[in-house]
Parts: sequence; structure tokens; C-alpha cells
Amino acid sequence: MQQFTAAQLKRAAGAIFNAAGAPQDIADFVAGSLVLSNLMGHDSHGVIRVPRYVEQIREGQLKPAARPETVKETPTTATVSGRWGFGQVAARYGAEVAIRKAKEAHVAVVCLVELNHIGRLGEYSAMMAEQGIVGMLVTGGWRPPIAGVAPFGGAGRALGTNPYSFAVPTAKRDMVLVDFATSVLAEGKLQVARAKGTPLPAGVILDKNGNPSTNAEDFYAGGVILPVGGHKGYALSLMADLLGATLPGAEARGHDWNQTGTFMLAIDVEAFRPLAEFTAAVDHRLGEIKDVPPAPGFKEVLIPGEPEMRSKAEREKSGIPLPEATWNAIVATGQKLGLDVNALAGA
Amino acid sequence: MQQFTAAQLKRAAGAIFNAAGAPQDIADFVAGSLVLSNLMGHDSHGVIRVPRYVEQIREGQLKPAARPETVKETPTTATVSGRWGFGQVAARYGAEVAIRKAKEAHVAVVCLVELNHIGRLGEYSAMMAEQGIVGMLVTGGWRPPIAGVAPFGGAGRALGTNPYSFAVPTAKRDMVLVDFATSVLAEGKLQVARAKGTPLPAGVILDKNGNPSTNAEDFYAGGVILPVGGHKGYALSLMADLLGATLPGAEARGHDWNQTGTFMLAIDVEAFRPLAEFTAAVDHRLGEIKDVPPAPGFKEVLIPGEPEMRSKAEREKSGIPLPEATWNAIVATGQKLGLDVNALAGA
Repeated sequence: MQQFTAAQLKRAAGAIFNAAGAPQDIADFVAGSLVLSNLMGHDSHGVIRVPRYVEQIREGQLKPAARPETVKETPTTATVSGRWGFGQVAARYGAEVAIRKAKEAHVAVVCLVELNHIGRLGEYSAMMAEQGIVGMLVTGGWRPPIAGVAPFGGAGRALGTNPYSFAVPTAKRDMVLVDFATSVLAEGKLQVARAKGTPLPAGVILDKNGNPSTNAEDFYAGGVILPVGGHKGYALSLMADLLGATLPGAEARGHDWNQTGTFMLAIDVEAFRPLAEFTAAVDHRLGEIKDVPPAPGFKEVLIPGEPEMRSKAEREKSGIPLPEATWNAIVATGQKLGLDVNALAGA
Repeated sequence: MQQFTAAQLKRAAGAIFNAAGAPQDIADFVAGSLVLSNLMGHDSHGVIRVPRYVEQIREGQLKPAARPETVKETPTTATVSGRWGFGQVAARYGAEVAIRKAKEAHVAVVCLVELNHIGRLGEYSAMMAEQGIVGMLVTGGWRPPIAGVAPFGGAGRALGTNPYSFAVPTAKRDMVLVDFATSVLAEGKLQVARAKGTPLPAGVILDKNGNPSTNAEDFYAGGVILPVGGHKGYALSLMADLLGATLPGAEARGHDWNQTGTFMLAIDVEAFRPLAEFTAAVDHRLGEIKDVPPAPGFKEVLIPGEPEMRSKAEREKSGIPLPEATWNAIVATGQKLGLDVNALAGA
């Protein structure tokens, strides 16, 4: 493990994306988005993604200079095309459209199509909550082999890890920030278990014959990840597909394994009650929940988003730890683009 | 077990609600709603509820003649008061408002407050899908002791079983109909295990000290039900509280353990793509998922709503089985109101 400051990682990733063809503003925004995931403790969505994004640029899947545009709209809805650029850029634009429409018309639904990986959903729901808007996002539409999750009762790949995010504004407390995959575990965790050769917990994967396994290799040999909570997580995952991808017609605009889209809902609190009254009531309710005594093995009850805010405070102070292999892959990606990433990062 | 036709149970429940003070149209609608739950296989939300509803009328909590009204609205939103009547009546009215607004403005959010138990959420999301609208419902705001679910990491009661429902229109297939509690199991299942004296599966409840238990008695002695999928189900449950109850201010209009509300989202598919194109794409996607080979122990992959539609077809043909105790309690409830329920039902 090596420690980096957020600024060092942003400089490195920003320079790489810029050298790979992204205008400076896009390169800096995507770099900042990845580093924010590292700060929040979600390293699977952090700078570890840099080499793959650059590969996708090279393969022509990701158009680094593309800017999103609204291709269909009503006062309360919009379909946004990411024009196959960075998903993060499309998601930020979509969230801005959703916030503007929700402020004008109280409720808005914005769907994104023709886009690459959008990163951590919570970044965009949080944009809404910061503006007094209740936000919800889901992403769906990945297809096998990228989509590694089985439907409940099935032994084959059909669904992505199709995440859900919600954000709710608060008064004095940190916002409520929900962000989770509808699979039992994220695929990144399987990569870690495979690299270390450690067994998985029971109930996470099936092997290619549909039998339970705790060996991560069995997933990579054609197995599946299970949906969380059996038929419940499966139903949520299917809904993420239908809302995120089928509603805006992503399947007709996608290719192969990428038929993805993102669904964003924005609700203006003021349509129901004054914002200050709502946020005070949310704070009060969160207090009731924080007051529940912890179960054996737990120190306290946490509100969704609390672990991330604590990680951010801690990593802003003491730095972001990266495994050597992750940093070396980023350095090698820079090298191919003629960049001395170690010098750039001052690392 | 005794077998009843849907018509018999509707006559019995309708006559009881009418004798307890509900106008005929309300009595018949609520009776039909309960019997539909029985048909769909969700007996915990069926006519087993009749005695408790009548008790609530007697206690003054449920005003059987009350009709809902819209108390605040914009072109895209509404807050509906159930005026403490039957929750089913408020929910049907709310769904009608949401459908009308979604057809006019493409997206609508309707929140219900001041209401009693609304029954099976899927009934109201299905109303939307039947009109070419994608529907989502959540209910939250129950307080202990009725609210028996612990937050993740907690050993005390704080949340209800806070359900989610989604419905999506289809072309030739049955609609997608999602409807689940965010707890591992519904409380009704615990009642069954307690009555039979059978152990619960592991991971369903904690005893009053926060230790895992498989003895249903431990729940009734002050224990808790766990949220499904740990922190994920907890986050969904909390969001059902904040969307369903806090957004429309149900906590300020409720009392004791009933500070509940319901959140309804209605989305007009046509704002994104022609309905026929969408429903064909949904059918195609469902076909891909049905084609996944079943895992050992399963016969096929099911789409959410399929088990319910099969139960309905089967029970419409061969009747609805009710345990003797359930029927006897309904007969006794009728007796107190001067009704001969056996004669009424022709049973």
C-alpha cells in the first residue's frame, strides 16, 4: 500500500485522460469523480478504473471528447444521450437537467442512454439533495458476459449488479445517501478474493452448473453472482433494467454487452411541505433510528451514507491507500501516453 | 382448511364492513381488495384482516364511511388525506389521481397520509400498469411496537416491514408486478411459526437482547425482525419511511404507532417512447430472463408477479382455502354485528 493525497491522484488521472483525448474540463471532472469514490471508501469505483477507461478509449467504445445532449424532452422528462462519452459527464448533465426540471415542475424523470460506466451513483443523487431535492437513481441494461448476476432461481448470467441510489436532504445531520448493488456482493470483491486466494462467504456465487461455491474462480469459469435477498434483490435488479434501460430504449441504441441506461428521479420537497420543516423532520427521524441500541458485534446504528462520510473525513486527513499493483497499472497507462505519472503526481 | 369461492368471501366481508358502518360501495371495494389478495396467494393480506379492521372501527381508529380528499396539489404532485378511513379507499383514489396527473404531465408523485392499512401495494401499482403507466409505491412510517424491524446493526424496533411495489406494462405477457417487504420475512409468517411451534430459518429475528434466534416466541417477547440483505434492506426501509411518511408530513398528522404514509410514483411511458414499442421491448427482455436455465432445485425462472398470477388462475378455479380458525374469527365478528355469516356466504 502507498498513500496518496486526493490532489495527487486527481493530477495523475486528469493528465492521463487529457493525454488520451479528453478536453481538460472533462478530464478533470472524471478524475475528480473517481478520486471522490476513493475518498468515500469505494475503491472499486476509484482510480483503479483509469487503465480500463483508457483501454476503452483505444478500442473506440469511449469517445473522450463527447458531450451529452438532450435528445427528447417534456417539461417533466428528458432522454439524454451521453454520445458514448464518459458516463460521469452524462450523469452530471442529467442530474443538472433533473434538478432544473424538478425546480420548475416539482417532479422530473431523466433517462440516460448511449453512455459508458457512470461511476458511483451516489455522486449524482447527492447533487440533488444538496439542492433540496430528493433524488433516486438506478442503472440497468448490462448484458452477459459483463452482466454476471443470475435471476432468482436461475443458473445463468442475465443481469448486471444494477445499483440503486437515493439521497435525502437534512438539516443539521449529513444527508441520507443510499448507494448499493442489487447483487449480494459487487464483482470487485470477487476480484479481491480471487487475487488473495481466500474463500468467499457462502451464498454469494454459484458455479457454472448452478451449484453453490465459495471459490471465486468458479465465478470466472462461467458461474454467476446471486441477487441480494433472493427474489427481492432480483426484482429490484429487473426493475433497474426496465426503468434505466428499457424505458428510454437503451437496448435499441446499445451494442453487445452495453445496452445500459440510467434512470433519475428528482422530487421537489417544497411541493409537499416547506423544505426546512421536512429536513427537521428527517433529522428527527434519523435521531430515533440512531437511538436504537446496537446489536452484539456493532458499536452503533449507522445512517446510510455515514460510513462514506467518515471515510472521506479520514482519507482527506491521512490520504488514500492504493495497492502497489493499482498504482503501477496507472503509471504504465500513463507511460504508453508519454506521461511520467510519478513525476506528475509528485509521488 | 375449508374452500371458499371468491364470491362467497366477498359477500361475507362486504356484509360485515357494511354492518360495521361502511357505505355499500366502500364495503364492497375493501372486501374485493382483501379477496384479491387471497386469490393472488397473499393470505396474510386477505380476509384474515376482517376481524382486526372491525376492531379498529370499534376503537375509533378506522372511520368506515370516510372518503379521501386531495389536501394539497400541483400539476405533478398531490397530498391525499385518507381522513382515517380504510387505507384501500385512499390508495385507490391516490392511484387514480397519480394516473390522471401522469397522463397530463408525464410524471406524478402522490403521497397519502391519515390512513389505515392499505392492503397489498401491488393492487395499486397494477392499476397504473393497466393504463400504460409505470408505477412505484412504498409505504413507511409505522412506529414501535407495531414496527417490528430493527435497523441494520441495531437490536431494537424502529421500522415497519415497509414494502415496495413496482408494476410495468407488457405486450403479450402478464405485467411485471413486484411487491415485497423490506424485512427478511413478513410478520404474518412469524405468527404461523408461533402457532405451529416450528422453528424459524436462521437470520430472520433477534431476541430482545439482540442475539440470533429461531424461536418465534422471542420476537413476541420484545425481539426484532431483521431487514432483508442487511444494510441494503435497511436502507430501502428507511427510504420508504422518508418518502412515504416524512415527505408528506405524516408524522405530524399521525398518532402513536400510526404515523404512516404511502408514496406513489407514476410515469407515462409515452414521454420516452411509444407504448407499443416499450411493451414489446419489455416482453423481449423478460423472454431473455425466462430463458436462463434453472438452478438445481428450481423448475424455471419466474418473472415477478408470475407466482401471483398462477395462484389467481388456480384459486379462481378451485377456490380459496382458509384455516378453520380464520373463518371462525370472521363468523364471530359477523355475529357481534348481528350477521349470520355462514348463511350469507352460503357456506
